[in-house]
Amino acid sequence: MAAMNASLPPAPARAFASDNAAGAHPAVLQAVLEANEGHALAYGADRWTAEAQARFRDLFGPTTESFLTWNGTGANVMALGTMVQPGDAVVCSEWAHIAVDETGAPERCLGTKLLPQPTTTAKLVPEQLEHLAHLQGVQHHAQPGVVSITQSTELGTLYTPDEVAALCDTAHRMGMRVHLDGARIANATAALGGTVAALRAFTVDAGVDVVSFGGTKVGGLGGEAVVYLDPTLARRAQYVRKQVNQLPSKMRFVAAQFNALLHDQLWITLADHSNRMATRLYEATRTVPGVAYDAAPQVNSVFPLLPADAIAPLRDWCFFWDWDVSRNQVRWMTAWDTTEDDIDRFAAGVRAFVAG
Amino acid sequence: MAAMNASLPPAPARAFASDNAAGAHPAVLQAVLEANEGHALAYGADRWTAEAQARFRDLFGPTTESFLTWNGTGANVMALGTMVQPGDAVVCSEWAHIAVDETGAPERCLGTKLLPQPTTTAKLVPEQLEHLAHLQGVQHHAQPGVVSITQSTELGTLYTPDEVAALCDTAHRMGMRVHLDGARIANATAALGGTVAALRAFTVDAGVDVVSFGGTKVGGLGGEAVVYLDPTLARRAQYVRKQVNQLPSKMRFVAAQFNALLHDQLWITLADHSNRMATRLYEATRTVPGVAYDAAPQVNSVFPLLPADAIAPLRDWCFFWDWDVSRNQVRWMTAWDTTEDDIDRFAAGVRAFVAG
Amino acid sequence: MAAMNASLPPAPARAFASDNAAGAHPAVLQAVLEANEGHALAYGADRWTAEAQARFRDLFGPTTESFLTWNGTGANVMALGTMVQPGDAVVCSEWAHIAVDETGAPERCLGTKLLPQPTTTAKLVPEQLEHLAHLQGVQHHAQPGVVSITQSTELGTLYTPDEVAALCDTAHRMGMRVHLDGARIANATAALGGTVAALRAFTVDAGVDVVSFGGTKVGGLGGEAVVYLDPTLARRAQYVRKQVNQLPSKMRFVAAQFNALLHDQLWITLADHSNRMATRLYEATRTVPGVAYDAAPQVNSVFPLLPADAIAPLRDWCFFWDWDVSRNQVRWMTAWDTTEDDIDRFAAGVRAFVAG
Amino acid sequence: MAAMNASLPPAPARAFASDNAAGAHPAVLQAVLEANEGHALAYGADRWTAEAQARFRDLFGPTTESFLTWNGTGANVMALGTMVQPGDAVVCSEWAHIAVDETGAPERCLGTKLLPQPTTTAKLVPEQLEHLAHLQGVQHHAQPGVVSITQSTELGTLYTPDEVAALCDTAHRMGMRVHLDGARIANATAALGGTVAALRAFTVDAGVDVVSFGGTKVGGLGGEAVVYLDPTLARRAQYVRKQVNQLPSKMRFVAAQFNALLHDQLWITLADHSNRMATRLYEATRTVPGVAYDAAPQVNSVFPLLPADAIAPLRDWCFFWDWDVSRNQVRWMTAWDTTEDDIDRFAAGVRAFVAG
Repeated sequence: MAAMNASLPPAPARAFASDNAAGAHPAVLQAVLEANEGHALAYGADRWTAEAQARFRDLFGPTTESFLTWNGTGANVMALGTMVQPGDAVVCSEWAHIAVDETGAPERCLGTKLLPQPTTTAKLVPEQLEHLAHLQGVQHHAQPGVVSITQSTELGTLYTPDEVAALCDTAHRMGMRVHLDGARIANATAALGGTVAALRAFTVDAGVDVVSFGGTKVGGLGGEAVVYLDPTLARRAQYVRKQVNQLPSKMRFVAAQFNALLHDQLWITLADHSNRMATRLYEATRTVPGVAYDAAPQVNSVFPLLPADAIAPLRDWCFFWDWDVSRNQVRWMTAWDTTEDDIDRFAAGVRAFVAG
Repeated sequence: MAAMNASLPPAPARAFASDNAAGAHPAVLQAVLEANEGHALAYGADRWTAEAQARFRDLFGPTTESFLTWNGTGANVMALGTMVQPGDAVVCSEWAHIAVDETGAPERCLGTKLLPQPTTTAKLVPEQLEHLAHLQGVQHHAQPGVVSITQSTELGTLYTPDEVAALCDTAHRMGMRVHLDGARIANATAALGGTVAALRAFTVDAGVDVVSFGGTKVGGLGGEAVVYLDPTLARRAQYVRKQVNQLPSKMRFVAAQFNALLHDQLWITLADHSNRMATRLYEATRTVPGVAYDAAPQVNSVFPLLPADAIAPLRDWCFFWDWDVSRNQVRWMTAWDTTEDDIDRFAAGVRAFVAG
Repeated sequence: MAAMNASLPPAPARAFASDNAAGAHPAVLQAVLEANEGHALAYGADRWTAEAQARFRDLFGPTTESFLTWNGTGANVMALGTMVQPGDAVVCSEWAHIAVDETGAPERCLGTKLLPQPTTTAKLVPEQLEHLAHLQGVQHHAQPGVVSITQSTELGTLYTPDEVAALCDTAHRMGMRVHLDGARIANATAALGGTVAALRAFTVDAGVDVVSFGGTKVGGLGGEAVVYLDPTLARRAQYVRKQVNQLPSKMRFVAAQFNALLHDQLWITLADHSNRMATRLYEATRTVPGVAYDAAPQVNSVFPLLPADAIAPLRDWCFFWDWDVSRNQVRWMTAWDTTEDDIDRFAAGVRAFVAG
Repeated sequence: MAAMNASLPPAPARAFASDNAAGAHPAVLQAVLEANEGHALAYGADRWTAEAQARFRDLFGPTTESFLTWNGTGANVMALGTMVQPGDAVVCSEWAHIAVDETGAPERCLGTKLLPQPTTTAKLVPEQLEHLAHLQGVQHHAQPGVVSITQSTELGTLYTPDEVAALCDTAHRMGMRVHLDGARIANATAALGGTVAALRAFTVDAGVDVVSFGGTKVGGLGGEAVVYLDPTLARRAQYVRKQVNQLPSKMRFVAAQFNALLHDQLWITLADHSNRMATRLYEATRTVPGVAYDAAPQVNSVFPLLPADAIAPLRDWCFFWDWDVSRNQVRWMTAWDTTEDDIDRFAAGVRAFVAG
């Protein structure tokens, strides 16, 4: 091992733990610095927030209503809180962040049941909604009232615009509303064309009603937005935002982050870079003996299967998280600031620890 | 009016709307910039968060447990969520932020009843707790299980350490726990001596169990902490924090703010300045004919009564909020960045609009 | 005392603790027995429930929708749960059962804030609603969305139909809905005319949207109903009923109680009797030296002030509850089965213990 | 078909829809009638409730604490509400009534997440709990704090005492508490020996902490109990009961039902009869051509697979509910009052409609 390590390159400057291990993009920090001028009324009555709202209208259309929030769990809970009616449940994938990784925040803050559906891709299909029709109108069952999908998903997969549209059509026909958890909406947009038109294709054009729009993972300090493509659902949004602890007082500093990210499509550029780094990592490691993949990456994460005894030493050298321990599957995630050099060093390490 | 206005000085650079209309202190921004170095694990597993936790132990004692959060409402809801037992209610003043200004977030996120008590000072007294003893053990009444006090209060008043201790003694004797909403704990600390000993006197020494420790209003970008002086109450804190949407992913950027504010007692220095500016404003306006005060300021807000027809023009010139419309009472609040020049210009304006 | 007690009549067979200390009327029990024939589908798909629903339509009008429930707290929580929108609060009197005597069930089950208003009569007035207009549209405040009034009130007072209509007019003009907690709606109906027209005058004709209709206190075993005078609010009622644990499986046994009570206006007859017994008790004791009253009874309770040292012995002889200990005020409540002999014996006891 | 129907016996007097379609046992009604004597203090301060509490202590042991409630959903919600700690989730089978048939009442009233586990038998196994250990201590996941099992299960299966004990051992070792939903605990007791010792073997002796004890389905009018085998968990029970709308005012009428059912083991006798009727139905139909069974009944329900076109006519003749439509599987459930003649007539109908 000593000999082997002697030939190792230094570990990459940035590990592959998560895109929320990355810091903020310099343009975001610069915008925050510039927003720190004198006084501005709190709770959104400031010009930076107005600018962010205008930018979201530019993205999604002139009737869009947007509300800045702190974090992704909060944005999801707020969005759902304005969408559910009394007695409703929220349909989602069994991999959904709202179901698995939010410590029960939706149940806690909304009193709302989730109905997680089985899937190996983290993607719902219309048939799963149709199958729930037997619950509708029966007083013993919480009513499937909202569908929440994640784009890109928790497994790094993507819905095509047509797939989202089919879900929305079915949902709306069944009287349900559609929420899109876009914690990584930038990565999805980049992967699906990298344009505002690409974004619209799988959101407003597909019939999505409300979007949680992520800013943190794509280069922010901390800030998300709930974007109402159906503005009639925004009627109670400001109250629900405060009720679920998501109203920033010095909102200009959240707004400034979005104003930087949404300027000149920086958010897409950064996400595209992150996606490409994942592909580079996949290509650089897929042929390493001992490394196996179920699939090529669609966005900014890869899920290799590794030899059991290689995982710990590799992780000690450069950190990442387990994914499916039973399969010796791990997750390597790239970020907006991952460099080609990071990839190359890490791939060298993989070769050393796995195939060495 | 034109003639009068002609002689007016320019309006102050900073108005008197609120201390959350102020921006962030340069040291806070610098700390955020410096924390933006490479990758750091999310959700608190970073060295900036560890430093902040150590700083809170330095402030309150070695068994203190602290948790960083986004905002004041969230910190309060999280704190209370770890303190209530099934069937409990939270006793507070009828002026309490949790009762009046949080859009029902405690009820929404915790399902917990509040029991607001009448007071003209925004301060509770032990007799009010004792009076609630008739509720205890009666199955028809939510059980007074937590007392939440605010320091400094929503009316700008202060509890002395003895007053807090007396409340804590009574509360504990009755089986209740004590929460202190310290959104302006810096102003209170500055006003009560300006030392760590002063802070301890009205918190840990007085018997307070859990503190919401404010960072935003005293020069932060956005960040608060829930500090467990009784660490046994922290056992479920991390889960409740996430459940109420208060877990920052890139936590280092919240921690960095506190590390800057808690360094060399900057938080006390800034609050002390803010308090002194309020006193200066009070002194500069109390003798203006037409201006009346119920009391001198104890921290960073004054509540003058003004001639009805002077309010709108004065506000148009330099913004502030109404307080009690029925009495023509308004609130002028200073901030960490209010300058003597701001005060002097504003006082000149008051003289011009009120007494002119 | 021994001599005095020697001359006492035996204590009444029925004390004056509460109308829910009374049992069930024989016609109610007979109806339950008769409903116990063979099998009937559960959860309301039975002919007794259909009959009860028809009876409520007869009472309130043909578009009325009614839902049977277990108990008064549950009926109130269910009703409010279908009326509140996200971010709403419920306005009520500070004496309201929902605010004082339900252990925080509305907050617990609905996550909804209550806004109790001060009153010495347990009655709200339109001005109190108007005063809340300053909360509307402000994101920091839970929105007054529902007004809940109690008829007859917790203090034994009555709203006139005009008073209810004025409240409903104001509430509706402000965008609020009106709930009437009718745990003692029978007593109110009897006191205000004793006819269906009298009932309608202060409910459907006055603009009330939803009624909790009490059956238990007026001779039932246990059963209440939520009656939607505005049937559009009933759209989610069946789901909310189940969610708040108020769906009886063998519903025919709740329905049978209402079918007996609503037959031939038995509910009004029984309540009228109860009311008259309270008046008889008032008249029989008001001139006893040492007994004082603030007011004559309007329904089935009286609230005498007694000499401090007479209360315990009198209570030991024949039980009743304290009301305002600070004033030595107690409550004597009559029931559907209180007899003239009960009153006469008790009045003799009062004379013996108070004036003896 | 006309010829066939001509030879059919009349349909049974009692169909096979559910055990909650049955009425009340005469002894239950007699007890209610006898409890209707004069006045008794409300909310449990009556001698019938004291008797019921004593009877539960006789069943489960002298430290048992029991609380009467209205219905099964309410009993479950109340029980869980006293067992969960902040941040906890409730582990259950994917068939659990709390997960599937309570319209989300646990989420609504408690804000608590459920973690339904896959199973074809509706029974949990210790390995499923152990598998959840990876959630423990991780702030992103609601903490598995309570296990809720159903006995007999929603699929008519039974846990052996050893199976319950193994679950309790694992749960307790992992720091979890165990709730048993005993809506049909009588059927389970009858099936597992028919004695109090049999009851104790799978509850208190096995380590169960809290039981929802069903009375309604086994001959009651409407009434359940929450029984604390670990009395330390009962400390807040009375408040939680009221908060979730489960406190009967005229509690004597719920208590009287239990006093009748628990007298001379009537509850076991009735459940045993019901179980035997299911076995008789199974034996009488299992060899009918076209009828298939996955398994023999363990308690009072059978789940036959029938020819698709026979289901509707058979149901029209004598009602029952579908179970798994995709397999043409239905449910026939017997009750305490099902007679041998009912079985024989129905079996004749099955032969006529299925094999005719």
